[in-house]
Amino acid sequence: MKIVIVGGVAGGANVATRARRLSEEVEIVLLERGPNVSFANCGLPYHIGGEIADRKKLLVQTAEGLRQLFNIDVRELNEVIEIHRSKKCVSIRNLSSGEIYEETYDHLVLSTGATPLRPALPGIDLPGIFSLRDLADMDGIISWLDLKKAKTAVIAGGGFIGLEVAEQLHRRGLSVTVIDSNEQLLMPFDLEMSAPIAAEVREKINLILSDGVKEFTQSGDQLEVVTRKGEKLLGDIVILSIGVRPESELARVAGLELGERGCVVVDKFLQTSDPNIWAVGDSVELKHRVSGKAVNIALAGPANRGGRLIADNILGKRREFRGPLGTAIIRVFGLTAACTGLNERTCRIQDLPYKAIHLHPNSHAGYYPNAHPIALKLMFNPTSGQILGAQAVGEDGVDKRIDVLATAIAGGITVEELVDIDLCYAPPFGSAKDPVNLAGMIASNIQEELVETISWDGLSAVKGDVVLLDVRSKLERDKGMIPDSLHIPLPELRSRLNEIPKDQTVIAYCQSGQRSYNACRILLQNDVRCMNLSGAYKTWSAARIT
Amino acid sequence: MKIVIVGGVAGGANVATRARRLSEEVEIVLLERGPNVSFANCGLPYHIGGEIADRKKLLVQTAEGLRQLFNIDVRELNEVIEIHRSKKCVSIRNLSSGEIYEETYDHLVLSTGATPLRPALPGIDLPGIFSLRDLADMDGIISWLDLKKAKTAVIAGGGFIGLEVAEQLHRRGLSVTVIDSNEQLLMPFDLEMSAPIAAEVREKINLILSDGVKEFTQSGDQLEVVTRKGEKLLGDIVILSIGVRPESELARVAGLELGERGCVVVDKFLQTSDPNIWAVGDSVELKHRVSGKAVNIALAGPANRGGRLIADNILGKRREFRGPLGTAIIRVFGLTAACTGLNERTCRIQDLPYKAIHLHPNSHAGYYPNAHPIALKLMFNPTSGQILGAQAVGEDGVDKRIDVLATAIAGGITVEELVDIDLCYAPPFGSAKDPVNLAGMIASNIQEELVETISWDGLSAVKGDVVLLDVRSKLERDKGMIPDSLHIPLPELRSRLNEIPKDQTVIAYCQSGQRSYNACRILLQNDVRCMNLSGAYKTWSAARIT
Repeated sequence: MKIVIVGGVAGGANVATRARRLSEEVEIVLLERGPNVSFANCGLPYHIGGEIADRKKLLVQTAEGLRQLFNIDVRELNEVIEIHRSKKCVSIRNLSSGEIYEETYDHLVLSTGATPLRPALPGIDLPGIFSLRDLADMDGIISWLDLKKAKTAVIAGGGFIGLEVAEQLHRRGLSVTVIDSNEQLLMPFDLEMSAPIAAEVREKINLILSDGVKEFTQSGDQLEVVTRKGEKLLGDIVILSIGVRPESELARVAGLELGERGCVVVDKFLQTSDPNIWAVGDSVELKHRVSGKAVNIALAGPANRGGRLIADNILGKRREFRGPLGTAIIRVFGLTAACTGLNERTCRIQDLPYKAIHLHPNSHAGYYPNAHPIALKLMFNPTSGQILGAQAVGEDGVDKRIDVLATAIAGGITVEELVDIDLCYAPPFGSAKDPVNLAGMIASNIQEELVETISWDGLSAVKGDVVLLDVRSKLERDKGMIPDSLHIPLPELRSRLNEIPKDQTVIAYCQSGQRSYNACRILLQNDVRCMNLSGAYKTWSAARIT
Repeated sequence: MKIVIVGGVAGGANVATRARRLSEEVEIVLLERGPNVSFANCGLPYHIGGEIADRKKLLVQTAEGLRQLFNIDVRELNEVIEIHRSKKCVSIRNLSSGEIYEETYDHLVLSTGATPLRPALPGIDLPGIFSLRDLADMDGIISWLDLKKAKTAVIAGGGFIGLEVAEQLHRRGLSVTVIDSNEQLLMPFDLEMSAPIAAEVREKINLILSDGVKEFTQSGDQLEVVTRKGEKLLGDIVILSIGVRPESELARVAGLELGERGCVVVDKFLQTSDPNIWAVGDSVELKHRVSGKAVNIALAGPANRGGRLIADNILGKRREFRGPLGTAIIRVFGLTAACTGLNERTCRIQDLPYKAIHLHPNSHAGYYPNAHPIALKLMFNPTSGQILGAQAVGEDGVDKRIDVLATAIAGGITVEELVDIDLCYAPPFGSAKDPVNLAGMIASNIQEELVETISWDGLSAVKGDVVLLDVRSKLERDKGMIPDSLHIPLPELRSRLNEIPKDQTVIAYCQSGQRSYNACRILLQNDVRCMNLSGAYKTWSAARIT
């Protein structure tokens, strides 16, 4: 049997090595049009900033290593230019010699990845405008920075890569501007969860939201970025990170089924519409594990694990790829933000029955030094208790909670079951009630109708018809409050019930939502209509400082 | 309705506050024989060492707070001395006045905790011998340390509390000896997983294993600890941390059903054999979530969450407590060790069908700075793929992986499903194949019979009948190897197959087990009987340095 693999990075390299481990017999040809196989894409920004000092560390596995250890026929600088499905062969251009030749296959694997978007804006081809996708891009950026002794940078796009590059350019000492046409950074997050990241970014970087690039011009030795709103930004370098386009041209020309956004369609075995052709990675669309809808998730994890699964299936297993959750994480200066599953925006768009909760637990026991609050959001189905998605932002312990919640989603754990999961607790690591347990408790309380909540963005619609009740201490209130709120500290609430208007709905808030939940329980049992402000003052004020 | 709660710390305090949130009507009496309710037991060692500088931080919730915020009738220094089940009342001694009085109940909750074991050894009552269970113990230890200007300490017992106290006394500048009668520290771990902790401890502390205390004598101003093997250890202070005994005397005298080890027996609703009496925390036995066997797990998490559940059930819900996993964690100097579910010892004792794997992945992507290896062990049922338990030791990322695996166990995720869980990946946090995914892959490979493994402690039984094959580089081998092993580096294996004896079983090893797995796959396909040494040289050498 002969397996031909197009693309030698994450997905492709995994097909090759797993196939070899399964069979010493099979012939494996790995074709990579670039000069490197199996490099660490996700590390590229960190070499630009110097955090990863040694470039060689980015070469996870070399072609020579794959040949020696795995007896794989690796051919770098060999580009597949056409698939001949009826002949079961591909045409290949040797980019060194220019020669074109054919290679037959029993199974063909497409791991062609994606290309950075370069919109046809005026000036887009000016020198000094870069994308960051591979080692050559990275080398080009570093050379340019050195050559121009760059002091200023403009980054178009405030997504994951844009922010990672922004952080690293700041680390190199550049003055950086990030511009994004959305009203928030990091679109996989909901606005109020991305807001703390925006605040953190603004401490170090010039951030422009709700505005996009209109054109680029040369201005002396610098590039000028003209925005749609007419701002003019000067930079010694421009980095585009406004998204990627799946590389599915080979598949399209070969007549394989493509999805709406041009992604290669695969079934749960990662097989394309041609049973001898498989596809994996950034160029495919997969069914999201929670929504079941087709999604194109350009992340390393699913690509690597999908590659392994394709090798299994080619070599006689019949394994199903469980859909991705889109779990993702980013460190931005002192903060970490991570998410898994669906965000609230998607729940709304897809009209799913859901409730969202916000909480602000400590990363570990509050009585032990260096506990940091985590802003945690959880979406769940209030009928079934199914967890739909989660987001978290904070200085510490964010990755752990999102990984636990991703695992809970994968295991079909309900919010009520979250309450009882035994998680690590010693003062430096957690709490007797871990943030994940707390999320389960808060969600269960809503599911059991012990309390109703209202979100920060629902407040404006009801304001005027309701009484806002602040149950914090005077000290906390003096540091900031929601305007026009009545103030009764929680310890006084039972004795001051007569001050609560009985004919209006009360919306209670405290700092994080816990004391106002207690207040709601008291009020509800005294026949006061009442709702708890989800995430309370912390979430409300975070959302307002974007 | 009137709820009387015996014991005001973790379990008891949670019953009280949850009950109040559920009902403003119910009368709640919280009886605590000590001076403090709801203090942070788990923080006590850290105040001794000064990491938690402010003693007040240990008072999580005060009696006054419980009265004010929750309208709870808190009575500190009130000890319940007898339960009169037929009358549904308890006799209480007011420890301040000496007065004895009665209090009726509709529901009684026992959250009586456990007492440190003090074996009847000669000299056990000498001044300067302490246990650490509550604030008074902690205050006594600190006073004694100050009074005696203590420079040396002997700690009997190398469990969680013993090691935490040892670390903190070392932090205070004392010269510390830990003595434990077991051949390893931290019995919830298997020997080879506790071994790195022992090595870490030995860097700072005098550690004596496989020996116990025979007697204590006064030696001038110091205490002398005489061991069973005849060693004599001098200390200005002695801390006993050899375990706890459930405080179930009230329950026993009242005729409630007790388990073998004297724990209060409760059903899945946490109800005792008397339907009006409930019990929670360190004094009860619960069914272990994996084994289903009765266990007494003295940990804060189940106590807190169990308390909440009792309040639910008293107030009309019918919620089942999902058994504990015994998830636990400890930081010992620069290392962290954590575990969940069953260890291998228990799997053996209970004669469960299981396989154990060892791996040594990095805490995050190896190409990003400060990645640290994690020693990870996973037990699973090779037929069903059910995860039975896990243990991990390392400098970073240990808590996250054990929490994820605890959640996987709770969600019934099989080892094969572990492969596909989408976990956080960016270079500072993880890898495209997270350690948890890798554990799933390695276990699945065994389940699918792609390879057989042998454990470090199985090696001695077969040695002589097998060929040990080291597939590492010469450089690695020169730093340490398993004696009498053949050396063929993996890249040369295919071309040197003729050097492998065909009539003997080969046991392959490398540094962590990954390359030797590749070697096994090559050998097996060339008709060589072959096994992979689980965890390879790293696990084998760790186990030998206990």
